[in-house]
Amino acid sequence: MRKLALNPDRLFSSDPTQRAIARELYGSIADLPIISPHGHTDPLWFADNHNWTNATELFLAPDHYVYRMLYSQGIALDDLAIPHRQGVPATDPRKAWNLFAANYHLFRGTPSRLWLDHVFASVFGIEVALEAASADLYFDTINEALATEAFRPRALFDRFKIDFLATTEGPQDDLSAHHRIHQSGWKGRVVTTYRPDAVIDVEHEKFAKSMARFADLTGEDVWSWKGYLAAHRKRRADFRAAGATATDHGHPTALTANLSPAEAEALFAKVTKGDWTPADAELFRAQMLTEMAGMSAEDGMVMQIHPGACRNHNDGLFHSHGRDKGADIPTRTDYVHALKPLLDRHGNNPDLSIILFTLDESVYARELAPLAGHYPCLKLGPAWWFHDSPEGMRRFRETTTETAGFYNTVGFNDDTRAFLSIPSRHDVARRVDCAFLARLVAEHRLEDWEAAELAHDMTNGLVKQAYRIEEPLSDSKAA
Amino acid sequence: MRKLALNPDRLFSSDPTQRAIARELYGSIADLPIISPHGHTDPLWFADNHNWTNATELFLAPDHYVYRMLYSQGIALDDLAIPHRQGVPATDPRKAWNLFAANYHLFRGTPSRLWLDHVFASVFGIEVALEAASADLYFDTINEALATEAFRPRALFDRFKIDFLATTEGPQDDLSAHHRIHQSGWKGRVVTTYRPDAVIDVEHEKFAKSMARFADLTGEDVWSWKGYLAAHRKRRADFRAAGATATDHGHPTALTANLSPAEAEALFAKVTKGDWTPADAELFRAQMLTEMAGMSAEDGMVMQIHPGACRNHNDGLFHSHGRDKGADIPTRTDYVHALKPLLDRHGNNPDLSIILFTLDESVYARELAPLAGHYPCLKLGPAWWFHDSPEGMRRFRETTTETAGFYNTVGFNDDTRAFLSIPSRHDVARRVDCAFLARLVAEHRLEDWEAAELAHDMTNGLVKQAYRIEEPLSDSKAA
Amino acid sequence: MRKLALNPDRLFSSDPTQRAIARELYGSIADLPIISPHGHTDPLWFADNHNWTNATELFLAPDHYVYRMLYSQGIALDDLAIPHRQGVPATDPRKAWNLFAANYHLFRGTPSRLWLDHVFASVFGIEVALEAASADLYFDTINEALATEAFRPRALFDRFKIDFLATTEGPQDDLSAHHRIHQSGWKGRVVTTYRPDAVIDVEHEKFAKSMARFADLTGEDVWSWKGYLAAHRKRRADFRAAGATATDHGHPTALTANLSPAEAEALFAKVTKGDWTPADAELFRAQMLTEMAGMSAEDGMVMQIHPGACRNHNDGLFHSHGRDKGADIPTRTDYVHALKPLLDRHGNNPDLSIILFTLDESVYARELAPLAGHYPCLKLGPAWWFHDSPEGMRRFRETTTETAGFYNTVGFNDDTRAFLSIPSRHDVARRVDCAFLARLVAEHRLEDWEAAELAHDMTNGLVKQAYRIEEPLSDSKAA
Repeated sequence: MRKLALNPDRLFSSDPTQRAIARELYGSIADLPIISPHGHTDPLWFADNHNWTNATELFLAPDHYVYRMLYSQGIALDDLAIPHRQGVPATDPRKAWNLFAANYHLFRGTPSRLWLDHVFASVFGIEVALEAASADLYFDTINEALATEAFRPRALFDRFKIDFLATTEGPQDDLSAHHRIHQSGWKGRVVTTYRPDAVIDVEHEKFAKSMARFADLTGEDVWSWKGYLAAHRKRRADFRAAGATATDHGHPTALTANLSPAEAEALFAKVTKGDWTPADAELFRAQMLTEMAGMSAEDGMVMQIHPGACRNHNDGLFHSHGRDKGADIPTRTDYVHALKPLLDRHGNNPDLSIILFTLDESVYARELAPLAGHYPCLKLGPAWWFHDSPEGMRRFRETTTETAGFYNTVGFNDDTRAFLSIPSRHDVARRVDCAFLARLVAEHRLEDWEAAELAHDMTNGLVKQAYRIEEPLSDSKAA
Repeated sequence: MRKLALNPDRLFSSDPTQRAIARELYGSIADLPIISPHGHTDPLWFADNHNWTNATELFLAPDHYVYRMLYSQGIALDDLAIPHRQGVPATDPRKAWNLFAANYHLFRGTPSRLWLDHVFASVFGIEVALEAASADLYFDTINEALATEAFRPRALFDRFKIDFLATTEGPQDDLSAHHRIHQSGWKGRVVTTYRPDAVIDVEHEKFAKSMARFADLTGEDVWSWKGYLAAHRKRRADFRAAGATATDHGHPTALTANLSPAEAEALFAKVTKGDWTPADAELFRAQMLTEMAGMSAEDGMVMQIHPGACRNHNDGLFHSHGRDKGADIPTRTDYVHALKPLLDRHGNNPDLSIILFTLDESVYARELAPLAGHYPCLKLGPAWWFHDSPEGMRRFRETTTETAGFYNTVGFNDDTRAFLSIPSRHDVARRVDCAFLARLVAEHRLEDWEAAELAHDMTNGLVKQAYRIEEPLSDSKAA
Repeated sequence: MRKLALNPDRLFSSDPTQRAIARELYGSIADLPIISPHGHTDPLWFADNHNWTNATELFLAPDHYVYRMLYSQGIALDDLAIPHRQGVPATDPRKAWNLFAANYHLFRGTPSRLWLDHVFASVFGIEVALEAASADLYFDTINEALATEAFRPRALFDRFKIDFLATTEGPQDDLSAHHRIHQSGWKGRVVTTYRPDAVIDVEHEKFAKSMARFADLTGEDVWSWKGYLAAHRKRRADFRAAGATATDHGHPTALTANLSPAEAEALFAKVTKGDWTPADAELFRAQMLTEMAGMSAEDGMVMQIHPGACRNHNDGLFHSHGRDKGADIPTRTDYVHALKPLLDRHGNNPDLSIILFTLDESVYARELAPLAGHYPCLKLGPAWWFHDSPEGMRRFRETTTETAGFYNTVGFNDDTRAFLSIPSRHDVARRVDCAFLARLVAEHRLEDWEAAELAHDMTNGLVKQAYRIEEPLSDSKAA
């Protein structure tokens, strides 16, 4: 069997000058705690603190990065034990794992490969590479570890040195998992994030159901415009009480609107009656971004906008397997015109903070960096989803820094459902950032002491500041 | 006169670590045979096996990469002996060659320069650089060589170690050149490719003429929808009999449609009556991509889609010189929405294989890699046309690999009319791929043995598999 | 206090092979004179030759690159002494400077930082870094210097070795500053550029006022189509008499039109009556680009097109502070379809020369390089505005050279209002170009002697040729 070993210089340039600088920068921040301000882990894990059962359930079933690649090469999702609309297929988890292992070469050159190898080596201590020949060894080793006390969610949370972890819930969620975490006495800081898409997107198949739950949880008449806005305010307060410092908005586009109160009320009446065109649905989502920005300016919650995914592109797979099955495809996304209505209303409000994400890299230099390099309320979220990768992060820095600088960015988001991969994802981000800084220093575009400050700020300072988690930036920049 | 010498390390990084790795990888694949699954060489060359006559006819007249650059600097096409609509201008070929030589500096930094120098040095053994002072020497040396037995098409085919060469013909072609090649007893594997644009694009000025020929060759009533589809099936069978494993589709956009049979028939009736708008013509092309995908799923021919060129952009030049004169300009191209109708109908069909190309690099990371990294029927063709260049190929790998991996790509296409440049084009691609792999190895993102496997697969394995030329991938990935 | 020292190898690769080549190339062109064919310095500076008063007035007030970044971090423009619509705020310039100094870390990684440090070190001889602790030292040092004879505009012009400097004026400008410069006997070559936007953009709030002035200065009936065109011809002649060799056009898009004379006249009548829609205004701008191209073919003035900025995006700031306050945001820009009408009319005219710029980098490889690599009348302007930066210039070369070559580009434009930064901007461009050439040489894609020629041409030869300032390219390319 082939060896598995993580090279300590991985992801640094092979140029000796740059590598030496990167190594030193990385050394100074490698052990900083993890701040994870945006992600999709399940709060029940930390509320219940149950053991996970096996490698397949943990690594394959929740990770669409992994099974989309296998699917693209003609492997059936059933053979990987991926749940479909009728439930989990009766596939032997070991067989599924073996199929994955035999096809592990497909991940060469991908971030999944980097993350997985890091987890295998550093979390489970495995010393051979994953391939057909080592599949059973992996399956047994991982499953044995998972059964132990040391591999329960809370133990790993502590082992991973996570200082802050945000999950994402909707207005229809009662936050009971979060309440149980907070009442348990455990010290881990796990908070929620307010993501109201389910009660904003009238095109979602469960819109009516989510609205009913929204009404139940708030006691408001959510089918009236006033009651609907009041319900948002109530739930935002509930989420803040459960530790939330941010909201999140995953719309198909970045479109915003700036309707008058009367127009907004009329539009709400129309779309909630079910009497809408796709253009009405889009306009309502657009107006709601502006409404949410207004509430953020009031209550201080940082607003995240994640637009640009064409969801459920594979029609057949959507019918058989449902949402979030690796079939979301990015689309060209405009920000300059789309955000203007919101910015016309709130763009110079010092209390508002909006973090922008994109799946369309062509906007980094052209639109996002110029916007964030001007508007006080706009910051740039890190390279997202398909671009959360070494090359993607490098392009992000290369195309945004010269116009937006470093201080209009917000550190790293792991954005993951794969809890065990959190340290590996942060490690990749830290290494890529240090490699980028090292190039600037080696090319005499930045002093070494500045790079050291920046490495620290990009790892912890900026994320705490941007997500209002409270901690000053590195000393030299204190007022 | 300046010297001409090909440096053995050309196109590798100057970083010593990366260069050493690249050199070793390249050494392991440099002598592999050439598989050329998509191109535009003339099958008559191999059927007739006549000598070419002179350097101007061979290097200037067919190579729009070359004369477009000269034209851009104010040099008249007549002075370069480029054919116009009335025929070949009465320009002395030696004078044309001298003009080219005196302006060879214009090609600095371009792939044409790399390809041409490679041909001059390695095919003709020339040891001085092309410039005004060496123009006559070049013209004489090349012409003398071309008159010899060793420089006839079949001899060069063998010398170039070409294992497989696909040309491109339309449904209106009787394939007689291919039949003569196959009947000649010569062992060279030259096959055709089915490119039906001429009978699909009702906006083409020769549509009616092509349809008449289509009817003649098939005996079908091609002006009825059923007969038209039957004629396609017949000709696809003819092409397969002449060795074709693939079809090719060069539409202005990637638009597809998913009309009902009745709608498709009505649209066909409309456009074939000449009673169409540009939107009708576009919709018919769109529907025909979906029809062709259906036939590919039936007969196993791999489907290539090459969209996004705005053809004949220079109106004056089109009137004086006609098509394919270096005046085609790429345009922004959407794939996510455009391909959905076809994918809704055939996207999960395990028998279908579609290779996508683009002239719009902004879609690599945003659209094409996510599509190919999910749909089993989609693969990514290599960097195409203007992007078939060292920087273009590097960007292709950097922006697609992390999401689509290497195994959803299909190796290299030379796509050329310039037969003598085929080895040089493959050499550039192999070097750039090895340089890319070397960086990943040097940055500890890939093991050296993996890079060695990949180098082999990217050169031969993936192309044979993707174009169904039959040969397994490198051992470790055999099921 | 931290030291400030410019490293002689800044902006070169840290790879020793590349660095050595870059250093030698740079050494051969570092002392060449500055040709600045496009910019926005104030001709009054050179006409009056008055001393500047203080650092704040010189570095902050005119430089939207600088204050937009400070504004993006919540710093009020009033506190930086930036003029608003009612005048200059009563802010103590020293206080404003101190605020800037305390926030200088925001510019890490930006070109402003490179330019400013270069000015501080090489123009003022300052040896400590700018930060809160050194703010007063800077303010005093700079102000003292500015009061001296050696820091008057003309003295600096000579010290900077500027051979040619173009400013930009509109048709409503009487060019009196330029006339005074020329009549003064001073040898500095400062010329104007014809930028007629103010009398072409009917959406501009001062259109009527500019037209009135246009009429006054020409004596033409500018409200008739014939008189309007005649007025343009007269003013173009005036500008040529004041040394202009070029025109400039800053439209929202690159759209051109090719209307018949009667259609153009009717459109003119409509838009000048004030009876227009935004589409009419856009069509008129489009038609005027084609008219201007026609005049350029007549009178030999080189035409520059700078499209793609969404001006005054921040509505609140526009109302409080007016235009050009750092709130212009680039937008996606089409060239292929937009330029076709103009090119249909004038594209093959050997007397016409158009230099294209963009704020949308996605068009470099896809549209601009293919267009410039074909049409004799088209050349590519350098990386512009937000992309006038080390990474921006590198991307420009990497994405245009392979298709357009070097000889369809036009050297560097500093495009600045910040006179003192001109040498630093040219220095950055020269270094980045040398670094790019050094990579090509180190990777054996270009010979060293070719790179040396190119370095010279990219610095002086191409810009003189493109802007018709008269000087041949380097010897080897003389016909």
